[in-house]
Amino acid sequence: MLTRIDHIGIACHDLDTTVEFYRTTYGFEVFHTEVNEEQGVREAMLRINGTDDGHASWIQLLEPVREDSPVGKWLAKNGEGVHHIAFGTADVDGDADAVRDKGVRVLYDTPRAGSMGSRITFLHPKDCHGVLTELVTSATEH
Amino acid sequence: MLTRIDHIGIACHDLDTTVEFYRTTYGFEVFHTEVNEEQGVREAMLRINGTDDGHASWIQLLEPVREDSPVGKWLAKNGEGVHHIAFGTADVDGDADAVRDKGVRVLYDTPRAGSMGSRITFLHPKDCHGVLTELVTSATEH
Repeated sequence: MLTRIDHIGIACHDLDTTVEFYRTTYGFEVFHTEVNEEQGVREAMLRINGTDDGHASWIQLLEPVREDSPVGKWLAKNGEGVHHIAFGTADVDGDADAVRDKGVRVLYDTPRAGSMGSRITFLHPKDCHGVLTELVTSATEH
Repeated sequence: MLTRIDHIGIACHDLDTTVEFYRTTYGFEVFHTEVNEEQGVREAMLRINGTDDGHASWIQLLEPVREDSPVGKWLAKNGEGVHHIAFGTADVDGDADAVRDKGVRVLYDTPRAGSMGSRITFLHPKDCHGVLTELVTSATEH
């Protein structure tokens, strides 16, 4: 069961510049940064608010670490902007199976490593009215 | 001060079909629908979670009611997908002034009517790393 908007993933050319924009314009501070080699991104997580399922909603800023990564290719085609949205669930495996059973293509056979120890999968944007949609179970949920 | 991710605005060709996708795929139910003639959209609000500032985060599905509306033109150019993101604040007027003072273009001189009695304004996406960004004060905040 999806219980929150976990994050909005935003692709950018330069992570440091974009982090600085979010800090100076809105006052949002970086909570965490990491490089996800499998996804090919360097990312910063900005915590925006707590959610009533005991977790939080985040802005995730993503800079590709190589041009041929999914985010790198997306950025070359689309320019900076919202890359994906993510719904949080205590059971990413079960929810991925459930949406697959409804005919939505799930991009991974089993969930992979996401930000801050989370487990994630993605749903095909063409099956989701144009929205690349992530399902995520945070590190403290699994 | 921006205290939550208020909503993610998603443009779609057919509101009823898209509402049905979100209901059957994820179990999200429609909380509210309305037509905003000024914005030129018919919209459905799906409540996803409560937030620790006492409000909530939503998915906002938007169907243009005329092709020459901003969402209609955006949809013709981009196809279905994430149209904008919105941060919630108790003081949209003050926060709009504050971001304007930082050099970000604010699209309205004064906030206009948004969903469910809210007051909203938009920031120019070219000043926000490609993200059309809304600031919103909900009806119970102003």
